[in-house]
Amino acid sequence: MTSAERSVRVLASPEGLGELDIRDHLVVVVDVLRACTAIAHALDAGARGVIPVETVEEATELAARLGRGSAVLAGERGSLRIDGFDLGNSPGEFVPARVAQKTVVLTTSNGTRTFARAAKAKQCVAGAIVNRGAVIRRARAFERTVIVCAGDSGGFSYEDFLGAGLLVDAMVRDASAPVHLHDGARAAREVAAGIADLHQALRGTDHGRELEALGFGEDLALAAALDRFDRVPALRDGSLTAEEP
Amino acid sequence: MTSAERSVRVLASPEGLGELDIRDHLVVVVDVLRACTAIAHALDAGARGVIPVETVEEATELAARLGRGSAVLAGERGSLRIDGFDLGNSPGEFVPARVAQKTVVLTTSNGTRTFARAAKAKQCVAGAIVNRGAVIRRARAFERTVIVCAGDSGGFSYEDFLGAGLLVDAMVRDASAPVHLHDGARAAREVAAGIADLHQALRGTDHGRELEALGFGEDLALAAALDRFDRVPALRDGSLTAEEP
Repeated sequence: MTSAERSVRVLASPEGLGELDIRDHLVVVVDVLRACTAIAHALDAGARGVIPVETVEEATELAARLGRGSAVLAGERGSLRIDGFDLGNSPGEFVPARVAQKTVVLTTSNGTRTFARAAKAKQCVAGAIVNRGAVIRRARAFERTVIVCAGDSGGFSYEDFLGAGLLVDAMVRDASAPVHLHDGARAAREVAAGIADLHQALRGTDHGRELEALGFGEDLALAAALDRFDRVPALRDGSLTAEEP
Repeated sequence: MTSAERSVRVLASPEGLGELDIRDHLVVVVDVLRACTAIAHALDAGARGVIPVETVEEATELAARLGRGSAVLAGERGSLRIDGFDLGNSPGEFVPARVAQKTVVLTTSNGTRTFARAAKAKQCVAGAIVNRGAVIRRARAFERTVIVCAGDSGGFSYEDFLGAGLLVDAMVRDASAPVHLHDGARAAREVAAGIADLHQALRGTDHGRELEALGFGEDLALAAALDRFDRVPALRDGSLTAEEP
């Protein structure tokens, strides 16, 4: 690999992020079911920004400080809306009537803690199937990209690895010069290459089955909508806002 | 999944192991390049046992305590043999003349710390491409199996994920009833299904390239030798010994 060659890594869970010097990296946090899909919906629906926070207490305090007129409190634990919160984590809940001109404070089981680990990156964006192309266009400006699967409590999440593989594949196709694929990027791209129907693939995952059993089947269809949105949720001073790619 | 159905998980790195209750599980630690391949070679060469330890200091102290007549000190840092150690981590070094009737004390960058994390498992074995079939026969006795990739400093290791996928595929083929594949197991099996030449696949990995550049190309050929050994390195009281499947 020459020094000017672009490279991309995929981490199956956020724990490995601490081992990398990411100060000049683009970090793409991928949580397909559902945080990053919900974030894309919220910004498309006109939310001013989405602030990812790790704990329920933090979320509640922050929303109170922002004022309940300008903040929307959203998130889940065990896939269900948190008691006293305005919204859960279903992408379809983030509609203009609920979030336009508001700041969404979001806490989820895996996705939001991953943003905290990416704080040292040159730039951090939220990636999902719904905004694949836009994220990849943003990656053009970076020599090194790390795609981090939010994963499932430290474990492996098929849908995030698939989403990462779709991003890697799009990056390779988009690039005018070869992109070096590190181990995880190669494997994720191979997994994505085997998938013909994204919605069906999400339905076959551990978390997809769980969400369908809980009545959140619609969330899977929304999460599988490839390239629905053309802006990039980018983290600035702790808040994700919609930017041009 | 009914309660009697067998299931298998694959974790891309050991960090997630702490989130699972593994007390009734078989944990298969996979470190294809090179610890688990070397362990299989050492036991085949007649070593009494292989004791995986995390640090160089621990290894040195333990070997001294066992007596340098009965212990062999082996391991690597940065892929190279540790100063003052008898052996590095190349599978081909573990020949009868060096290890027969001896206890091998082994410390490596990723593999050996993974055994420490698996300590609470019902049983823990070392799995690699070279003993795939034997490991899978051992797994017959367990309802739940977790295959843990040693990974690469918290990151993703293609060769370990591939090795895990070969194990999953063999388990599915070996089983008389359906085996439930959790997310990581599905993805790893899909990656393995795409590989026609294991040796070439190992040569294309990040760590494989590094090893070849350091002159350890032969290690990759040894690591790719599918089903070469028919015994299982199983952890008993901190030591891996060769058992019938």
